[in-house]
Amino acid sequence: MSFNTFGRVFRFTTWGESHGPALGAVVDGCPPGLALTEADIQPWLDKRRPGTSRFTTQRREPDSVRILSGVFEGRTTGTPISLMIENVDQRSKDYSEVAKTYRPGHADYAYDAKYGFRDYRGGGRSSARETAARVAAGAVARAVIPEVKIRGWVEAIGGDRIDYDRFDPQQIDRNPFFCPDAEAAARWEALIDATRKAGSSIGAVVACEAIGVPAGWGAPLYAKLDSELAAACMSINAVKGVEIGDGFAAAALTGEGNADPMRPGADGPQFLANHAGGIAGGISTGQPVRLRVAFKPTSSILTPVATIDRDGAAAEIATKGRHDPCVGIRGVPVVEAMMALVLADQKLLHRAQCGG
Amino acid sequence: MSFNTFGRVFRFTTWGESHGPALGAVVDGCPPGLALTEADIQPWLDKRRPGTSRFTTQRREPDSVRILSGVFEGRTTGTPISLMIENVDQRSKDYSEVAKTYRPGHADYAYDAKYGFRDYRGGGRSSARETAARVAAGAVARAVIPEVKIRGWVEAIGGDRIDYDRFDPQQIDRNPFFCPDAEAAARWEALIDATRKAGSSIGAVVACEAIGVPAGWGAPLYAKLDSELAAACMSINAVKGVEIGDGFAAAALTGEGNADPMRPGADGPQFLANHAGGIAGGISTGQPVRLRVAFKPTSSILTPVATIDRDGAAAEIATKGRHDPCVGIRGVPVVEAMMALVLADQKLLHRAQCGG
Amino acid sequence: MSFNTFGRVFRFTTWGESHGPALGAVVDGCPPGLALTEADIQPWLDKRRPGTSRFTTQRREPDSVRILSGVFEGRTTGTPISLMIENVDQRSKDYSEVAKTYRPGHADYAYDAKYGFRDYRGGGRSSARETAARVAAGAVARAVIPEVKIRGWVEAIGGDRIDYDRFDPQQIDRNPFFCPDAEAAARWEALIDATRKAGSSIGAVVACEAIGVPAGWGAPLYAKLDSELAAACMSINAVKGVEIGDGFAAAALTGEGNADPMRPGADGPQFLANHAGGIAGGISTGQPVRLRVAFKPTSSILTPVATIDRDGAAAEIATKGRHDPCVGIRGVPVVEAMMALVLADQKLLHRAQCGG
Amino acid sequence: MSFNTFGRVFRFTTWGESHGPALGAVVDGCPPGLALTEADIQPWLDKRRPGTSRFTTQRREPDSVRILSGVFEGRTTGTPISLMIENVDQRSKDYSEVAKTYRPGHADYAYDAKYGFRDYRGGGRSSARETAARVAAGAVARAVIPEVKIRGWVEAIGGDRIDYDRFDPQQIDRNPFFCPDAEAAARWEALIDATRKAGSSIGAVVACEAIGVPAGWGAPLYAKLDSELAAACMSINAVKGVEIGDGFAAAALTGEGNADPMRPGADGPQFLANHAGGIAGGISTGQPVRLRVAFKPTSSILTPVATIDRDGAAAEIATKGRHDPCVGIRGVPVVEAMMALVLADQKLLHRAQCGG
Repeated sequence: MSFNTFGRVFRFTTWGESHGPALGAVVDGCPPGLALTEADIQPWLDKRRPGTSRFTTQRREPDSVRILSGVFEGRTTGTPISLMIENVDQRSKDYSEVAKTYRPGHADYAYDAKYGFRDYRGGGRSSARETAARVAAGAVARAVIPEVKIRGWVEAIGGDRIDYDRFDPQQIDRNPFFCPDAEAAARWEALIDATRKAGSSIGAVVACEAIGVPAGWGAPLYAKLDSELAAACMSINAVKGVEIGDGFAAAALTGEGNADPMRPGADGPQFLANHAGGIAGGISTGQPVRLRVAFKPTSSILTPVATIDRDGAAAEIATKGRHDPCVGIRGVPVVEAMMALVLADQKLLHRAQCGG
Repeated sequence: MSFNTFGRVFRFTTWGESHGPALGAVVDGCPPGLALTEADIQPWLDKRRPGTSRFTTQRREPDSVRILSGVFEGRTTGTPISLMIENVDQRSKDYSEVAKTYRPGHADYAYDAKYGFRDYRGGGRSSARETAARVAAGAVARAVIPEVKIRGWVEAIGGDRIDYDRFDPQQIDRNPFFCPDAEAAARWEALIDATRKAGSSIGAVVACEAIGVPAGWGAPLYAKLDSELAAACMSINAVKGVEIGDGFAAAALTGEGNADPMRPGADGPQFLANHAGGIAGGISTGQPVRLRVAFKPTSSILTPVATIDRDGAAAEIATKGRHDPCVGIRGVPVVEAMMALVLADQKLLHRAQCGG
Repeated sequence: MSFNTFGRVFRFTTWGESHGPALGAVVDGCPPGLALTEADIQPWLDKRRPGTSRFTTQRREPDSVRILSGVFEGRTTGTPISLMIENVDQRSKDYSEVAKTYRPGHADYAYDAKYGFRDYRGGGRSSARETAARVAAGAVARAVIPEVKIRGWVEAIGGDRIDYDRFDPQQIDRNPFFCPDAEAAARWEALIDATRKAGSSIGAVVACEAIGVPAGWGAPLYAKLDSELAAACMSINAVKGVEIGDGFAAAALTGEGNADPMRPGADGPQFLANHAGGIAGGISTGQPVRLRVAFKPTSSILTPVATIDRDGAAAEIATKGRHDPCVGIRGVPVVEAMMALVLADQKLLHRAQCGG
Repeated sequence: MSFNTFGRVFRFTTWGESHGPALGAVVDGCPPGLALTEADIQPWLDKRRPGTSRFTTQRREPDSVRILSGVFEGRTTGTPISLMIENVDQRSKDYSEVAKTYRPGHADYAYDAKYGFRDYRGGGRSSARETAARVAAGAVARAVIPEVKIRGWVEAIGGDRIDYDRFDPQQIDRNPFFCPDAEAAARWEALIDATRKAGSSIGAVVACEAIGVPAGWGAPLYAKLDSELAAACMSINAVKGVEIGDGFAAAALTGEGNADPMRPGADGPQFLANHAGGIAGGISTGQPVRLRVAFKPTSSILTPVATIDRDGAAAEIATKGRHDPCVGIRGVPVVEAMMALVLADQKLLHRAQCGG
C-alpha cells in the first residue's frame, strides 16, 4: 500500500519525488484564523535546506515554499493548505547504474519487490528530500500549538556523545551540527570531515523536547501520544529506533530508580524527575515531552558493496554523487516538525472529546 | 481523545477495564474462510495469563475467550469477529486510597487531567489487563499470515542480558521468563525472586522476530512497516522504546559497518547481514523482521513515593496488592500479538494496492 | 472488505449476526462525564423492538442492553463503551433451503459472491437485526448532543402519503406506524394488515428532523454534514434513497422557487424558508436539519420468485417465516439513531477544529 | 472540521479555492504500473470545462492538468499522484458586496458561522470549481477499473424528463446537455436559454450507471457500496438527493413489484430486473450499478433575495456575474468521476480482504 497521510484530525498528505518537478504537502483540518504566510514556513525549510555547509549534501535547492490554498489575507481559512516546493537542482546525470543495480540498505530492492517498478532517480519517493514537505507542514503545526516550544539537537554522532553537563541551548544554532555542547561540536567537525573525505557515512542520535505541553493530550490506547510520536519518528528516512524519556535505559532500572515523584506545585503537580519523558498512560503529564531518535548511517558510501541487479545477477555498487555524510544532522528539523505535527493533532483530538 | 482501534484494513477495536465485567476486541476486515475456533485463540491467552508462576501477579484469571460473531461452522465469514473475556478475579478491596491519591508513574494523574473522571479500580482502562484483548485479536491475525512465524523472547532483565551465543529457541518455553538462554534464566530466577520479595520491580527488554515475511509488505510513507510496528509496540503498557534491527546501535556505526550486502540466492537475494531488521524504506526485504522493545519497571512498588492527591495536597503512596515484579515478561506474548496484527494488516494492504 | 465502524472522532463499531449468541456496539470517543446508564438506552431499543404489534415481525426479542465498559458510577469515562444485546429468540428451524437457495433481493447471493461463505441463518450479518446495535449506540450519541432534538416519522407507506396539513407530532407515538397524521394511520392499519395477510411487503418513506443544531457543524468537503447523513442512512438495510431538504423536488425548481431568504433575527438570521434542509455547503445553518429516506419493500414475500441455488441451478423460493411486512416502520428509530450518531460526530469534529 | 480526503485505500485529497492560484488533488494508493499521462486525464476535464457553450458559465478556464508526482515514464509508480490545475480566469472584480453580504442558498453564511472567516472571492473553497480536481482524480480511478464502463446523463431539467423509450447513448455527447433523448435536448435548449436570459436558474436530475462491476464489491456495513456512492454524490455542490436503483419509487412498491428474479446465466446468474440498481446488502450483484442524483438550481440569480450582512443587518442581494443557469449539466462528469473513485476504492478494498 501507499499511505501518505498522517494525523487524525490535523492531517497532512505529502507527495513528490526527489527528481520530479516539485514536492509538497496538503495540510487539512487546520483551525481557521491563524496568521500564516510563506515567511512563517521558510525559516524552518532553511534550517533543513541542503548545501548550507560542507557537512551536508552539495545539492543546491532553494526550497522556496509557495502556499497555494487555504490562506486568505494572511490567515488560515480552515480549508486545506497546499504547500509546494519546486525541485531545482535535479542534476542531470547518468542513472543507468542505479536503475539496474540495487543499492543495499536503500529502498531500491524493496520498492521493486513491492511495486515492480520505480522512479530510480535519486531514490524517487524514498529520498529524504520528501522530508522538506514534512518540515513545511510542521511549520503550520507550530501555528496550531503556540503554547508549545519544540527544540531538537544532535546528542551523538557515531557513538561520540555530548556531555549534558555542558548542555547549552544557545550553542545549538551556532554550529552546523545542531550540537548543544561546544566541545563535542569541535570534535564532530573533525569526525564528519574525515567521514566525508573517506566517502563513508556515520550514524547519529537526535534528541527533541517539547516544553509547554499541558497535561491531558493523548488518545489512548491506539493513538497514545507516545505511540503517535514513535510512528511519526520511525517514518523518517534512516530512523531505526525511538525512545520516550529514559527509553531503553529504563529497562535496566528498578521501580524505585525509575520513579517520578510528585509534590504540590503552583499549577498542578511539581515532578521531581522525568524518567517518563512527560507521558504516562499515553497522555501528557505537563512535564517536558522528551524523545530520542536513532539515525543509521546512510548506505550511500564509496566502498563497493556486494549486491544484485534487477535480473538477479551478482554486482557491486559504490555511491559517488552528492549525499550527507551524516543524515542525522539534517534530521533535527525533521524530528522537530514531526513532533509539532503530532502535538497539533493531539491538541485538536483532545479538544474534540474533552473540550477546552 | 479516546482511540481504541488499530489497523488500516485489518482492524481491531478493544474495550474493557481491569475491574469491569469483561473485556474484549472486535476484529474487522478479516478474510473469510479461515479456520478459527476458540481453541485457536486460547493457547495465546494462556501464554499471557497471570498467576501461572510465582514470578507474575497472583490475580487468578482463567481468561477464557468466547467468539460472539464472525465465525460460522468453524470458519471466519468476513464479518466482524467479536471476542469476549470475562473478568473473574476482581478482588473486592478497598480502593479509597487509589481513588484519592495518584500513583506516580501510573496513568492516574494523566487520566484525571484529561478526562476529569476515571475508573480507578485496578487502573481501569489503563491497566495492562487490556492486553489480553490484544492477544486474542493477535491470534486471529496469525490465521491471516500462516506464512509467517513470530517468536518473541526476553533479552534482558534489569540490565542482565542474555548471551546470544547461548541462544536456544527451545529454551524459550521452558522457563517462566521466555528466556532463550538457560544460564540467564537461572540468574533471572534469583533476580525476580529478590525483586518480588523486596516489593520492588524491574525493567526488561523484549525481542521479537517474524520469519517468512515476503519482500514487499509496507505502506510508505506514513504507514511504513517499521512505523506501524513502532506505533503498535509503543502503545503497549510500560513500553518506553522500540528498535528495528540494530536500532540505536546503528547510530554508532559507519555505513560500511551497517551494510547489508546481497548476493544472488535461490529465491531472490540472499542477504549477508541484517542490520536493518528486514525493513528498507518502510518495506519488508524478505529477511527476518526484527525488533526490540523496552519495558520500564512497573511503578507499583512497596517503597512509598511522594505524590499528591486529587485535591493537590502532598501525600505518599506505596503499592501493596498483586502485581508483576517484571511486567516485561508477560509482555512477550503481547509484543508477538502486536507484530502479528501489524503484519496481517500490511499483508492485506499490500494485496489491496499490488494484488498477489 | 468488511468495514463495520462509522464516524470520525465519535465512532462506533457494530458486530453480531441475526442468529449468533449476541450482537453489540463499541462506542469510542465519547466525551467523559456524561450521565449514562442502561436505562438511558433501553427506551430507544424498545421503540425499535420487534414483536410489539401485529404489524411487525413476531420474533420476540427483549433486546436488553448491557453496558460492559466505559461507564463508571453512572457516568461515561471517555473510554470505549461496549454495549451488548443477547439474542434470545433464534427460533430453531430448518435452514437448509435458504442455505442452498438465494433469496432474490436479499444479500444472499452478493455475500456468497464476495466472501464465498456465509452464515445463512436469518440473513446472518445482513439481517436488519444489526440495527439494534445502531439504536443502542445512537442513545449514547444523544447524550453527546443534548441541545438537539431528533424526531422521525413515517411519511408514506406504499405511495400513500400523510397530509402535512394534519401533521401532529403528538400522534407519532400513538400508533404503531410512527405516523403523525391520524387519518393516514387509520388507512395504513388496513393497508399493512392486507399486506401481511397476503404474505406480501410494502415500501415506505421515513422523514426525520433535528432541531437545535447550531450553525457551523459540518466537515467540508468529503465529510459534509449532508454527505455523512446520506452515507449513514444509505447504510441502513433496505434503504434506496436519501434526500436532504426538498431533495429531488428541488431539481424541478428554479432558483427563485428554491430560495431560502434570510432576515435579521434575535439570534442570528431568521430564515423565511427551508428548502435546503438546514444545510448549505455541507455545513448546518441553524435551521432544522431535515432528511427523507426511502425504504424498499422487503424481499421476504410468500409469492415464489425465480432464483438460482448455490450450484447455479434454477430454483424458486418463497419466504414463509417471521418478517416485517413494512420494514420502513421500524426504520424510524434507526434513522433517528443514525442522525444522532452523525450529529454527535460532527459536533466533536467542529470542536476539534474551531473550538467552542 | 475540514475533511478533504475521500476513500479508504484508494484515496484522494483535494485542495484549492475558486480564485486562488491553482487547485489540485493528491491521489494515494493507486496501483503501480498503470499507463497514465496528462492526455488520459485532460479529456475528462474538457468535458467538465466551463465556457464551452452558451449554456454554461462564461468563465474561461483551460483547466490544463499537470502531473507533478507518482508517474514515471508514463506509468504509475504506486506513490502519490499530485495533480495541479492552474486558475487562469479569476476575473478581477469588486468583491466588496459578497464579502459583506451573505448570498442565501450559498455557503457564505454557513462558512462564516463555522470558521469566522472566509475567502469570499467566487465562493472560495465552496465553489464548484473544486470539482475539477475530482474529475482529474476520477480519471486516475478509471485506470484502476478498466473492466468498468461508467456513463452519466441528464435525466431531467426543471421537471422536464427524458423519455427512456427514446434513450440513445449516442446522443449524450451530441448536445450540450448530456441528454440521451434528442427531443428532450431540443426542448432543453429553449428552456435553458430562457432561464439564462431571465437571470434565473433551474434544477436537474443526473443519472449514472456503471457497467461491468463484478459481483462482490462493497464493504458492509458502514462502507457499503451504495453508502459510499451516496456519500460521494451528496458531497458534490448543489446535490440534495441520491437514489440507488429505483430509489424513492421503490418505496411505493410491493415486494412482488420490486423483485429482481434470477435465473441461471452463462456467467453467474441472469437477473430479470434491476430495481436494486445492482447492489444488494451493500455489495454489487454483477448487474449495472445505477444511481440518480438531484441537483438544486443554483442560488445565483438576478432576482434580489432578502438576506443579512456580516453585521446582521437586513440586506438584499442579486447575483450578476458569470454562472451556470443549470449546474446539474456540468454535474454529469463530476458524478461519473465520483462513481469511478468509489468503485476503484471498493475494488481494492475487496482485493484486500478477499484476494482475487
